Amino acid sequence: MGTTQLETVPEPKYWHLKTVLSEALDSEFAVGEILPNERDLAARFGVARATLRQALEQLELEGRLQRRRGVGTTVAPPRVGVAVAARHTWPGAAGDDWQPVDSAQSDTVPAAVARLLETAPGELMHIVRRTRVTEGQPLAAELVYIPAAAVPGCAEAELLTGPARAYAVLRELQSLELTGQDRTVELGSARAEDARQLDRLPGAPVLVVTTRYVSGGRTTAVAVSTYRADTCRLTFGESDAVALLAG
Amino acid sequence: MGTTQLETVPEPKYWHLKTVLSEALDSEFAVGEILPNERDLAARFGVARATLRQALEQLELEGRLQRRRGVGTTVAPPRVGVAVAARHTWPGAAGDDWQPVDSAQSDTVPAAVARLLETAPGELMHIVRRTRVTEGQPLAAELVYIPAAAVPGCAEAELLTGPARAYAVLRELQSLELTGQDRTVELGSARAEDARQLDRLPGAPVLVVTTRYVSGGRTTAVAVSTYRADTCRLTFGESDAVALLAG
Repeated sequence: MGTTQLETVPEPKYWHLKTVLSEALDSEFAVGEILPNERDLAARFGVARATLRQALEQLELEGRLQRRRGVGTTVAPPRVGVAVAARHTWPGAAGDDWQPVDSAQSDTVPAAVARLLETAPGELMHIVRRTRVTEGQPLAAELVYIPAAAVPGCAEAELLTGPARAYAVLRELQSLELTGQDRTVELGSARAEDARQLDRLPGAPVLVVTTRYVSGGRTTAVAVSTYRADTCRLTFGESDAVALLAG
Repeated sequence: MGTTQLETVPEPKYWHLKTVLSEALDSEFAVGEILPNERDLAARFGVARATLRQALEQLELEGRLQRRRGVGTTVAPPRVGVAVAARHTWPGAAGDDWQPVDSAQSDTVPAAVARLLETAPGELMHIVRRTRVTEGQPLAAELVYIPAAAVPGCAEAELLTGPARAYAVLRELQSLELTGQDRTVELGSARAEDARQLDRLPGAPVLVVTTRYVSGGRTTAVAVSTYRADTCRLTFGESDAVALLAG
């Protein structure tokens, strides 16, 4: 009586296995250690391979396991806290943690980006590619979309290549007045190109941070940053909170 | 020559299927429409069930499909932008979008929360449960952890039950001075209890937002908010960006 139907849904089998596996990870395995293969694990826990695989996927979602190309499944280190700039600055400003890779011009951008920039179809864009690395591990890949008309001064950037070209475009952007920015975070899956940069398989879960930069009453740049969801915890700080706790 | 090994990794089969399916969703299906069953879909696209299932999971991660209990797989509406309070306020302050459900006392909290609160083992806590709903759909579930010692004035809250008790605890918290807050966002999977509140299956991907509230030089409350990753896009705004674009 009074028990809703939802409450009587039993826990799926893999869910129980996940809890058991999670305890085994704590007690028997060290960070970085490679798990036994799926056949052996399934035999040890007396479950079907499909059930085991579901439980492993779950533990990967929760950041407890990492599946690594050519290595296998390893016990993940704790996630790294990655600061998402609270500061009110253009991409590429001093103190920025991103490395420019290159820049290209294009007249096609994803529909969601075109909507944010309110660009006309066929409008020429600079697309600056950047990457964020910590201790040799790729954390995030980024594309910054800037309408060419917004930064007319960097026409000569076309003569440059690689990071130099990316720097030239961002330098021009920084000469504009930044009047506002906002940001969204959502779950996505790594596109083939991002996956390569992040050393993940295509389709791996990622956290997609979209930042809109406003100047002179219109959106002047949109950055789409793709963070590895397995290794990253995004942090949004207030400097005073940290300072108060440290003091 | 010069081609790195990573670039030669071929696209997995399900990835191509995902692209094809995504186009079919755009051209043939309306939002909310139920997809044909897996057997029929696999036959139509000439793929194995396992490949189809991987592609469907991918589209679910990307927010294109929703798997709904007792309904099947439906075409998802665009994700809802959900504002994560940029304002510097305690949980439960005026204008807050959360509904208190209840509050309970406990001396056990998750290890990660205990670390943030720097509580002693066995220290008594208020745990306030809240929920966030839009247009009748649950978006997020939250637990706010507050050491009982930080809010001694709400001892009489024990006489209350349900939302009234939650309100009493939060009212006491609001009487303290809030001196700072910070926030992390990471990928998680829904625990059984959250899954029930969110009308999802246990293990569904969720965005976990952990907010730390600082008062008098120490962390005085920690809120762990679990947002449905399939339907939510978290927004972190600056009021000036929005105002400038609207103006």
